[in-house]
Amino acid sequence: MTAATRRHATQIKLAARPQGHPKPGDFAIASAPIPVPGEGEILVETKYLSLDPALRPRMNEVSAYAGAIPLHSTIPSPALGVVLESRSPLHKPGDHVSGMFGWQSHATVQGSEARRIDPERAVLPRWLSLLGLSSFTAYVGLVELGRPKPGETVVVSAAAGATGAAVGQIAKILGARAVGIAGGAAKCRGVVDVYGFDACVDYKAADFLKQLDAACPDGIDVDFENVGGDILRAVYDRMNPDGRVIVCGLVSEYNIDGGFPPGPSLWPTVYKSLRIEGFRASRYFDRIPEFVDKALEWSQAGLFTHCEHVTEGIENAPQAFIDMLVGRHFGKAMVRI
Amino acid sequence: MTAATRRHATQIKLAARPQGHPKPGDFAIASAPIPVPGEGEILVETKYLSLDPALRPRMNEVSAYAGAIPLHSTIPSPALGVVLESRSPLHKPGDHVSGMFGWQSHATVQGSEARRIDPERAVLPRWLSLLGLSSFTAYVGLVELGRPKPGETVVVSAAAGATGAAVGQIAKILGARAVGIAGGAAKCRGVVDVYGFDACVDYKAADFLKQLDAACPDGIDVDFENVGGDILRAVYDRMNPDGRVIVCGLVSEYNIDGGFPPGPSLWPTVYKSLRIEGFRASRYFDRIPEFVDKALEWSQAGLFTHCEHVTEGIENAPQAFIDMLVGRHFGKAMVRI
Repeated sequence: MTAATRRHATQIKLAARPQGHPKPGDFAIASAPIPVPGEGEILVETKYLSLDPALRPRMNEVSAYAGAIPLHSTIPSPALGVVLESRSPLHKPGDHVSGMFGWQSHATVQGSEARRIDPERAVLPRWLSLLGLSSFTAYVGLVELGRPKPGETVVVSAAAGATGAAVGQIAKILGARAVGIAGGAAKCRGVVDVYGFDACVDYKAADFLKQLDAACPDGIDVDFENVGGDILRAVYDRMNPDGRVIVCGLVSEYNIDGGFPPGPSLWPTVYKSLRIEGFRASRYFDRIPEFVDKALEWSQAGLFTHCEHVTEGIENAPQAFIDMLVGRHFGKAMVRI
Repeated sequence: MTAATRRHATQIKLAARPQGHPKPGDFAIASAPIPVPGEGEILVETKYLSLDPALRPRMNEVSAYAGAIPLHSTIPSPALGVVLESRSPLHKPGDHVSGMFGWQSHATVQGSEARRIDPERAVLPRWLSLLGLSSFTAYVGLVELGRPKPGETVVVSAAAGATGAAVGQIAKILGARAVGIAGGAAKCRGVVDVYGFDACVDYKAADFLKQLDAACPDGIDVDFENVGGDILRAVYDRMNPDGRVIVCGLVSEYNIDGGFPPGPSLWPTVYKSLRIEGFRASRYFDRIPEFVDKALEWSQAGLFTHCEHVTEGIENAPQAFIDMLVGRHFGKAMVRI
């Protein structure tokens, strides 16, 4: 369906601020006229929406992370699409682009806010998974901040998720040991079998800490933290001297009403010389082209792969997002429109 | 008094593990024969003992920080002294040395564990204050880890203490603004008047947070943390994006029975891109000569000074240490023997 044949745009809006874990009723489907691009803008028909855990804290009334999403506005989100109309010299109709198009079938954005992607280099959904922001986040967090040395042990939580899967594989490419943490035996097997981690530990298992000790006989040098809470604490207690805790996300803490819980004691940072460093990938966006080249090279060499967990239909985006927050997926969660 | 005339060595031992805040009864004075140096060792007559907050956690039954002090053993400590006898090619009788000689009048150590100091370059106590490990700790923590840029705001807690005073002065030398936190109006005045900080905030004042806001109108870029607890939290809440929290010590948490309390939420590390980094100066000991040269140069230029809080008599070391932990001193606390 094109803009010529489709009369209305479909949008998913934030209907209510979630209390704790989001519910379907926190979202609303709306219909609106297809927008008309202004000077310098393009009209994009979205093809794939990204589902990202970091959206959750932005649904609260106050969010220091990239700002709270206003009530009744369209959910912002990375997405892929095709240009239908252009009033920007940067893009022409038919171009494939990625950008913050949001959970909607059509979006207008400044031409400079859309990045051209080449579906000949990789099929469209790959630009959200293997080559997408989740993978890129893993890349900059690990290469720039975690800096694992060959032989060191890297632990990553939410290892079956889009960022975690990339962290482990890039750790291996850098010569480190990769240990994942994921929920459930099936996911853990997938992390080892599909992504080639050296081990993956099931945080839902009664003997989680024992499994973690067995998987990390030489301690932990880099923690790439996506989850927080008890999982972070378990890893933190096992950090080696000079260890690095790279804080990418704290998904287990996003749903807690009343704000974020305290972190671990800082005393080990002194006696073990630890570094705890948080980051946002947006700081490094100028390095996306470098990353795409490397990721494709690694992929062709069989070193870097990515599963996609695709939900069909924009109207199913809220439930897919809700499911993702509790980990009912393997690989990069996205919605095909 | 020399070894020839003095028959016995005086030692201060750990008599009991302190419960919470240390009491005089946790220490005992003992007398022992003056030790005889073995092959490669030197016999040192100590002249000055350093009093350091970091000793406190080592008095607990279990200490990950440099190991727990065994019950009934001599308190370990940096000290200055003069060589009485030498069976090491590195030192000769009459040499002045610094090393971990402990709270005792005489010590034998390997020659390689004593560092030659030159009392012609600076009088003896200066080698524990201006040129001592506390100052050196400030230097490496700020220069290597905090890395303040000109115009940035550096906040340091325990600003009237040996490390804090050096942090603020070195921050100024690097072109940053220096804001201290100390307990009581008199100490705060001293920090500004004696050490030249731009401001110093009284954490005991009812309007502490308001004072802190007023002293840091542009937020905080570097926190050099010596105290922890509520003071750390107040500073942490005011960190600017890309801020650095350099954890040197957590003196307010050392006396808490039942271990160290939780730290602040790690969520701000993500959305503000903060770095929290702990360190121990021992990692950088090869840079002590470089530091001594710089510190003397800064001192001669009138940019770097240090107060000394000297207690007379080794038998008074326990009470002086107890007083120091609650901040009843200004400058580097030491004991002259």
